[in-house]
Amino acid sequence: MKIEIINIGDEILIGQVINTNAAWMAEELNRNGFKAWQFTVISDNREHILQALEDASARADVVLVSGGLGPTKDDITKETICEFFTTRLVFNQEAYENIEALFARRGYPVTEVNRKQAELPESCIALPNRLGTASGMWFETSGQADRRTGGQGKKKLPTAGCQLPTVFIFLPGVPFEMKEMFTREVIPRLKERFTPQAIIHKTVLTQGIGESFLADLIKEWEGNLPAHMKLAYLPQPGIVRLRLTAAGSDQGVLQQEVNLEIFKLHTIIPDLIFGYDNDTLESIIGHLLMQQKKTLSVAESSTGGYTSHVITSIPGSSAWFQGGVVAYSNRAKEDLLYVKKETIESHGAVSEQVVMEMAIGARSRFRTDYAIAITGIAGPSGGTVDKPVGTVWIGLATPEGVSAKQFLFGDNRERNIRRTALTALNLLRKELF
Amino acid sequence: MKIEIINIGDEILIGQVINTNAAWMAEELNRNGFKAWQFTVISDNREHILQALEDASARADVVLVSGGLGPTKDDITKETICEFFTTRLVFNQEAYENIEALFARRGYPVTEVNRKQAELPESCIALPNRLGTASGMWFETSGQADRRTGGQGKKKLPTAGCQLPTVFIFLPGVPFEMKEMFTREVIPRLKERFTPQAIIHKTVLTQGIGESFLADLIKEWEGNLPAHMKLAYLPQPGIVRLRLTAAGSDQGVLQQEVNLEIFKLHTIIPDLIFGYDNDTLESIIGHLLMQQKKTLSVAESSTGGYTSHVITSIPGSSAWFQGGVVAYSNRAKEDLLYVKKETIESHGAVSEQVVMEMAIGARSRFRTDYAIAITGIAGPSGGTVDKPVGTVWIGLATPEGVSAKQFLFGDNRERNIRRTALTALNLLRKELF
Repeated sequence: MKIEIINIGDEILIGQVINTNAAWMAEELNRNGFKAWQFTVISDNREHILQALEDASARADVVLVSGGLGPTKDDITKETICEFFTTRLVFNQEAYENIEALFARRGYPVTEVNRKQAELPESCIALPNRLGTASGMWFETSGQADRRTGGQGKKKLPTAGCQLPTVFIFLPGVPFEMKEMFTREVIPRLKERFTPQAIIHKTVLTQGIGESFLADLIKEWEGNLPAHMKLAYLPQPGIVRLRLTAAGSDQGVLQQEVNLEIFKLHTIIPDLIFGYDNDTLESIIGHLLMQQKKTLSVAESSTGGYTSHVITSIPGSSAWFQGGVVAYSNRAKEDLLYVKKETIESHGAVSEQVVMEMAIGARSRFRTDYAIAITGIAGPSGGTVDKPVGTVWIGLATPEGVSAKQFLFGDNRERNIRRTALTALNLLRKELF
Repeated sequence: MKIEIINIGDEILIGQVINTNAAWMAEELNRNGFKAWQFTVISDNREHILQALEDASARADVVLVSGGLGPTKDDITKETICEFFTTRLVFNQEAYENIEALFARRGYPVTEVNRKQAELPESCIALPNRLGTASGMWFETSGQADRRTGGQGKKKLPTAGCQLPTVFIFLPGVPFEMKEMFTREVIPRLKERFTPQAIIHKTVLTQGIGESFLADLIKEWEGNLPAHMKLAYLPQPGIVRLRLTAAGSDQGVLQQEVNLEIFKLHTIIPDLIFGYDNDTLESIIGHLLMQQKKTLSVAESSTGGYTSHVITSIPGSSAWFQGGVVAYSNRAKEDLLYVKKETIESHGAVSEQVVMEMAIGARSRFRTDYAIAITGIAGPSGGTVDKPVGTVWIGLATPEGVSAKQFLFGDNRERNIRRTALTALNLLRKELF
């Protein structure tokens, strides 16, 4: 069963509005055991709408259309729909009463433009709009090509004049109206009309290795996955998310199978996995520190405040985060973190010795159990032969002592900063476990 | 001239990732005098890719495809492309050297999986990827249907075996790689190959007022804009960008007309405009400080490092930014910024008195000319009747003295943090002028 989502909207096609409606519908379909096969975005234009409906009916069993139904755009879209389905607009009493009630609640009279919104194609099932004036529409086609303009039949079944029936559903484009109608009217009808699949998604979060190296490590495991399971790599700077999707008929069996595969994955890359699904490194660290009643501070140079920012993006982080120093200049490292002038002079600001003194300094200045320290060359310039752009030292002071590690994170400033901060958080996470 | 954008990605079709690539490309096309006609999103699957390319070639002159080229997905997409264009993969020395250089910079050896990325279809023009391993590809079709599988000809020109040529462009799906390649390789080639409309965009950046209030202030000006000019509101937390777009045939005339309207806008909202186009508050401040040979430090509580992060996102900011303290706890405010314990006890941590002492403390600790200080309740909880969630105090210490201002920025943590930081930067900008 193939579902196509069509969004009508010029504002999407010039990039002014991002097509979040399609993403929302797709996610909702997925949660309910359906899968979108294709998204299409078209302009608010008769020929384009006709062509898109025609194209979609040739490849999809269900065509979900949203947009083009507002009071100012109503005319073109609904008349085009009538043309496509060879039907006509008729006054719909129920739709009119809904519009009247909505206006009464707001204390306005019904305008002519809104009265016209109660006119709906004769051959559709009207889907009531609880939050707005534009009704949704559900069309069951008979599968006869002559019900559509220029129908040429499905590509898979090219017998002239005969094709598989397609369900067409038209929804308003205003997100909250569309969502309410989709959840209340569309999903239950789809479940009645078609048989949803059981689907399970599990996302495994990894840190510390790039996509291609990770793929190399787990390729045997990936190759041995059952046919009904699919793996997707979703990389972000510093993090690679692995999404395992299993589709089948029995939710319980799928869950067991997914659990087993995740368990196997843990034995292959135990050090790289830091969490699942919507976890973040900062939320995990916050949770661990809270549980252990420990506190944290940060001394950062090249990340310029980003590490503290990520940590404090968690509501309630003041319970365990005491603060940080952004020691951008050498003098700030000396004055605020008590890094020795001689250490900087003999080893340079980006060095193991300095990052360790920074970590010790932050831990004592903020009187915390743990302190993260970072010094590096974020780029795009500032490197030397010995210390190329991208060189980063991360230090960690704990109640037991202090340690440091060197990394090379590339010369893109933004990504270098993000990778550095996430790597530092992951080092702390491992320490806390 | 019709442009279709195809994005390949299962993660988009299940709603896990929103299709921001298409929106970005569409906006970029628009800025350069082109307009996207249709967006299509398909799955990472041979049949689907073939069908989408076939469908698109029947309705578009340029087909822009992104996604499906990562090291782990490479095989399917590139082989399918070869099948569609009846060509074969050959080793591309230039692409390989690019991969090698990229890995060398990171200090890694080239893996087998990445070596395969240097194999490209024989009949394409390779588009170098400066930021990643997947090359882009540009195909000029001859317009012969037999160059494609099952070609049925354009619908507008259904003569069998003959159709209008279509340009196909394949780009990586990783946003920063795609964007760099799009700007450097694709746009100039499109401009050479087709004739873009004369389009002028000018974006005016405002800070300090919300979208609907701004709209109210400038509604008369907006209503009187010539018909070929369009205004778009592009709000971000703390900033509203106003994009004026003029389309016509003569670039010079358009430029004059736009200049005139921007001049008028300045007379209506002189205090709200802080820059144009790609300016940022942090880049403007950096420029001013550099010019005036002055230095800056930051003392921040509720913004948790975000203000320092924004400032240090500018390459070379170490020339004028000395550093900052993230004083999340009261003790950190006392120990590192010399805020008096009595001041916190009698006025509370979120107060005019404390923020002024923080600003003075940062200025003296970091020995800078200017210091920004921030204390507030970022939310979502932590407010009181006197000081509701969202309350923020911003202080500014200068060579002439210290001042402070109170704001109320709402209870959404992320937006509160961003609005606070940008407002603080704008206060400094006004001081520096």
